[in-house]
Amino acid sequence: MRFSTLFSKTTKSAPADEVAQSAQLLIRAGYINKEMAGVYAYLPLGLRVIENIKQIVREEMNVIGGHEMLMSALQPKEVWEITKRWDDDVVDVWFKSKLKSGTEVGFGWSHEEPITQMMKRFLTSYKDYPAYVYQFQTKLRNELRAKSGILRGREFMMKDLYSYDVDESRHLAFYERVKEAYMNVFRRVGIGDKTFITFAAGGAFTKYSHEFQTITDVGEDWIYVNAEKGVAINEEVYTEAALTELGVSKDEMRKVRTAEVGNIFNFGTAKCDDMQLYARGPSGENVSVYLGSYGIGISRLVGVVAEMFSDEKGLVWPKSIAPFQVHIVGLDLHDAQAREQAEAVYKKLSHHLPNKVLYDDRADVRAGAKFADADLIGCPVRVVVSKKTGEQVELKHRTQSESAHHSLEECVRIIGEH
Amino acid sequence: MRFSTLFSKTTKSAPADEVAQSAQLLIRAGYINKEMAGVYAYLPLGLRVIENIKQIVREEMNVIGGHEMLMSALQPKEVWEITKRWDDDVVDVWFKSKLKSGTEVGFGWSHEEPITQMMKRFLTSYKDYPAYVYQFQTKLRNELRAKSGILRGREFMMKDLYSYDVDESRHLAFYERVKEAYMNVFRRVGIGDKTFITFAAGGAFTKYSHEFQTITDVGEDWIYVNAEKGVAINEEVYTEAALTELGVSKDEMRKVRTAEVGNIFNFGTAKCDDMQLYARGPSGENVSVYLGSYGIGISRLVGVVAEMFSDEKGLVWPKSIAPFQVHIVGLDLHDAQAREQAEAVYKKLSHHLPNKVLYDDRADVRAGAKFADADLIGCPVRVVVSKKTGEQVELKHRTQSESAHHSLEECVRIIGEH
Repeated sequence: MRFSTLFSKTTKSAPADEVAQSAQLLIRAGYINKEMAGVYAYLPLGLRVIENIKQIVREEMNVIGGHEMLMSALQPKEVWEITKRWDDDVVDVWFKSKLKSGTEVGFGWSHEEPITQMMKRFLTSYKDYPAYVYQFQTKLRNELRAKSGILRGREFMMKDLYSYDVDESRHLAFYERVKEAYMNVFRRVGIGDKTFITFAAGGAFTKYSHEFQTITDVGEDWIYVNAEKGVAINEEVYTEAALTELGVSKDEMRKVRTAEVGNIFNFGTAKCDDMQLYARGPSGENVSVYLGSYGIGISRLVGVVAEMFSDEKGLVWPKSIAPFQVHIVGLDLHDAQAREQAEAVYKKLSHHLPNKVLYDDRADVRAGAKFADADLIGCPVRVVVSKKTGEQVELKHRTQSESAHHSLEECVRIIGEH
Repeated sequence: MRFSTLFSKTTKSAPADEVAQSAQLLIRAGYINKEMAGVYAYLPLGLRVIENIKQIVREEMNVIGGHEMLMSALQPKEVWEITKRWDDDVVDVWFKSKLKSGTEVGFGWSHEEPITQMMKRFLTSYKDYPAYVYQFQTKLRNELRAKSGILRGREFMMKDLYSYDVDESRHLAFYERVKEAYMNVFRRVGIGDKTFITFAAGGAFTKYSHEFQTITDVGEDWIYVNAEKGVAINEEVYTEAALTELGVSKDEMRKVRTAEVGNIFNFGTAKCDDMQLYARGPSGENVSVYLGSYGIGISRLVGVVAEMFSDEKGLVWPKSIAPFQVHIVGLDLHDAQAREQAEAVYKKLSHHLPNKVLYDDRADVRAGAKFADADLIGCPVRVVVSKKTGEQVELKHRTQSESAHHSLEECVRIIGEH
C-alpha cells in the first residue's frame, strides 16, 4: 500500500480526553479514531490488525471443530425475559430502544440467550450433539464509565464460542481443548508468556470459571500468580481454600496487575434448563444439555498488545498481527533515479509479500518525519531506499537499533526468514 | 466440511410469519435464522455466501483505490445535528438510546455524517485528496414494516464507499469508475445481465443519482428499461424531460419490477459544506470538497440472488458465491468399503478445493433425504459415492438434470473446468 493513499495521517498528540495510553498511541499512529467515549472506528491500519487477530482466532476455533456464524445485534425482549436478564437491575449494561410499534428491543451485549433460543430449532435429537459455534460480533454495552480506551469500550469486537453437548465427559473434554486453543491464540498473538489461565469466580453454576489474564500495568484486574507452577488465581477467589485446592501456598504467589483477554465458562446444564433446550433421547425422553461459553476480546487484545509492545517512539507489533510486515521509507523521491529505485524495491518486496508492504512514497515529507512515522506505526521491518543506499537498501528491525545495508535479494531473504 | 458437524439442519417448512420467498428458502436450507421481524442471523452456510460476496466487492473496491476501514454502530447526536438529520421527522428510521449519563446516542443507519466528521481530522490540506474509503457495516434501521425478509431488514449488511476530492473532474471520473466497479460486482455475483444502471432522483444536490436495479418479481421498485440502448429510468423520475435527455422515447421502454442492489450518489460540495469539511488550498484559502457516496446491500444481494437462482427443489447458487463448490453425497455408509470410498473422495476433492467441499457423511439418513438436502442447499456440483458407483463417482451439476459416472480423476478435472 502506498502511504500517500492512506488518509489516516499520524498526529503528534491524541485527543485531550483520551486517558488510556494504548488508545493514545493507536490514535496518534492512525489505527483508530475516537467517535465518542468508549467508541472507536478502526482505520485501515487498525482494521488490518483486527483482521489478523481474527484470522488467528478463526484458525484455532476451526481446529477444535467450531463453525463460524453471525448473530444479530438487535435482540427480542422475550428471549432475555426467560432467564430474567432483560431486567436493568440484573444486567446493567443494556442499550435498549423501541420499534415503531412500541415493542422494546435490546442491542446485543451478549448472545448466550439468543443462540440457545435458536438452537431449540436445530438441536432436537441427542444425535444432533455436540454443536460448536462461534462468531465475531460487535457487542454493545452501556458502561457507566469508558476511560480505558479500547480495553473496555461501549462498542467492541468479541469472539464468542458456544458448545452444546448431551455427554458430560465430552463436554468437559471440549472445555479443556478450548483452554489449549486459547493459549495457542495468545502465543501466536505474542503474549503467551505473559498470559495465565486463572481461576476466577464461577457464579451459580460451577465453583470456578477460567479467565485468561495477561500481565500488564494497564489492566483492571489483580491476580496472584505462581509462574513456575503455572497457577494463577483472581483476587476475587483468592482464599485459603482455593490455595489448598490448587496445591500452592500464599508465600509462593505474586500479586500482579492483569488485563483479562479471554474467559471460559462452564454453565453445566443450568442455562439450557432455564431456556428449556432439551435433547430428545434414544427413548424419547428429555435429556439435559451442557453449555460452555468462551470469549476472547478481539479489540481489547489490540489494546493490550499495543500497550505491551511499544516504546517511547511508538508501536512495536509482533509479526503475526502487524498491519504490514515491511515499511519502505523512500527518500530523495524528487530525484528520478531514487524514485525509480524505491518503486522497484516496492514492486519486488510486494511480489514476495503480497499486500504486506507499506511504501512511504510521499515526495514532500522530510526524512526525519518519515522515520518518526515508521517508528510510530511500528511494522516489524523498515527498509530505507535513497540516493545514499544506491543499488542497496538499508534494513532495520523495529526491535533493534542498528541497521545494515543489503542487496535487495539479501533483503528479501532476511525478511523471509524473520 | 462434514455435514454431520453442521448444526443448521434443513427443514420442510419456514416460520409461518415469513412471507418473503427468498427468506423462506434461505431459512429452510439452513442459511439464515429469523431472530425477529426483519432481523436475521447468518448460519454457517449463509455466512459463507456473505463472505464470498464481500470478497468480490472488496476486490473491486481495492482495484479502484478504496481503503477498507470500519466505523462504529454507536453514533453521537451532535454529528447528525449539524445536518439536521438527528430529527426523527427528517430521518424516520433511527434507533436511539441513552447513555447512563442521559446523553442520547444513535445507532448507525448511515455513516455519511460520522465519516465526514472524522475526515476533518485527516483531510486538512488539498494535498490530502483524494481519499477513497469503504466499509462493510451492519446498518440498523427502524423500518415501520419488515416483511421483505433479508431484502429490507431492520438490521442488514451494507458496503458503503465514500470519495472525497477537491478536484471536480477527478471526482466525476471516480464516480464513473465506481459505476464500472459495481457492474463488475454484479456480473461476478451472477446478476449482471439483469442489472441496469438506472437514473433515479437526485435530491437537493444533483439532478439525478444512479441506482443499480435488478429485474426480479420480488423487487419493491418499478423501472422503465430499454435493454438494447442500456437505458433505465426509475419510475419516480420517469418524465418526458428525462426521456428526451436520455435519447429514448416512451414506446421503446418496458416497465419491469426490480430490486435496488446498489446506489451511487454525487453530493457535489453540499454535504461537506454543511459539515464544514474544507481543504486548505495552496495559498491557505478554504477549498470546497466533493463527496460521493456509494452503497451495495450485501445481505440484500443474498436475497436477490437466492430469489433469482432457485427452482422448485431449492437454491441454485452461482459458482462465485456458493457456500461450497461440491456437495458429496455419501450413501451406504454403514458398509465399510463404501464409507472408505466416500472418505477417500472427500479427501481428494478437499485437497483440490480446500474448504470448498461439503460432505454428507450422515450414516443414518436415507438417500432420498440426502438428495433433497443437496438440491435445497444448492451447491453447483453434486457428487454421489455409493456401493453402486464403486470405484467411480456420479457427478451432476445443480443446473442440469442428467448425471454421469466418472473416475475420480475425471471428476476433479470437470470440477476444475466448471
